[in-house]
Amino acid sequence: MRLYMGLVHFPVYNKHQDTIASAITPLDIHDFARLGKTYGTKGFFVITPLEDQQTLVFRILRHWTTGYGARYNRHRKEAMDLVSVTSTLEEALLRVADREGETARIVATDAVLQKDRDMSYKALRRLVLSDEVILLLFGTAWGLHKDLLDKADHVLEPIFGKTEYNHLSVRTAAAVILDRLVGRSNRLENF
Amino acid sequence: MRLYMGLVHFPVYNKHQDTIASAITPLDIHDFARLGKTYGTKGFFVITPLEDQQTLVFRILRHWTTGYGARYNRHRKEAMDLVSVTSTLEEALLRVADREGETARIVATDAVLQKDRDMSYKALRRLVLSDEVILLLFGTAWGLHKDLLDKADHVLEPIFGKTEYNHLSVRTAAAVILDRLVGRSNRLENF
Repeated sequence: MRLYMGLVHFPVYNKHQDTIASAITPLDIHDFARLGKTYGTKGFFVITPLEDQQTLVFRILRHWTTGYGARYNRHRKEAMDLVSVTSTLEEALLRVADREGETARIVATDAVLQKDRDMSYKALRRLVLSDEVILLLFGTAWGLHKDLLDKADHVLEPIFGKTEYNHLSVRTAAAVILDRLVGRSNRLENF
Repeated sequence: MRLYMGLVHFPVYNKHQDTIASAITPLDIHDFARLGKTYGTKGFFVITPLEDQQTLVFRILRHWTTGYGARYNRHRKEAMDLVSVTSTLEEALLRVADREGETARIVATDAVLQKDRDMSYKALRRLVLSDEVILLLFGTAWGLHKDLLDKADHVLEPIFGKTEYNHLSVRTAAAVILDRLVGRSNRLENF
């Protein structure tokens, strides 16, 4: 499996559909790293061009990978080792290409149905399990900017729960998506 | 569907297997409320006997249900309307019984396989969809105390990702579990 994740802080939308750079939510770094480790992803990129925000992420990583946190909780260290920081999507793509020797397909996620552009979980699951190099992109704040959706090779279909309400946090949405793509529950055998 | 969730802050374990009361993580309240709303649960109980922690939760709820937050983000208000605070598991059970006219089955979650006590996702999904009254319990910190596991009618099987690493945050674990139990992705048709 050669699956990578990217959490985009720019360009994303705010509530009013303005283009913004969102602030880092430290818990996101932890939750994505732990998810990435659980579901066997090869890397997780925190994507932000803001230097002070990059510094914040580096500080968190240092604490948990070499500082006190690394001794306090080695499981967290293992997860945090997956995390890198890049300024842009392009930089994340370069790092993946450098490691894998080929360019990743970009798969964007979005809470809104993208007409004629939706890839099913089943189709993406097949790609992921067939060892394609894939960068799965998640948007913070009110979601990925249209420019990024346009750059993506595919847009994954939204999560449908049991209701019409679709306002999950990006952390919990990522959990559901990874489980649908690579989880090995017995549902595959039993359903 | 008559599914409820409870997030237990006491009794739970710390890293050293001591019994503790954990502190509230405000993001948990938001994430569970949004998950609960997305997946059609009827209520979410924040269970803590500590008065200052109860006060913190009440303050968060007030902000988002009647204060500035309610005007700022009505989707969040809708989700926060699901949240109640109780001091104990018993109090949460009483509230459910009061509303449903019958006692809930308690289903505990745990990251460790509970020998001979594991209910599969498939079995629990069937119960949930058959309209049984169910209280699904999640533990904060290092997990639910043995006393609560013993009180539970069932213990749900752990989440298996793709690796042996099983250190998800309780927020993301709850997301995966709810999706496995009630999500209506096309996986049911396609897998």
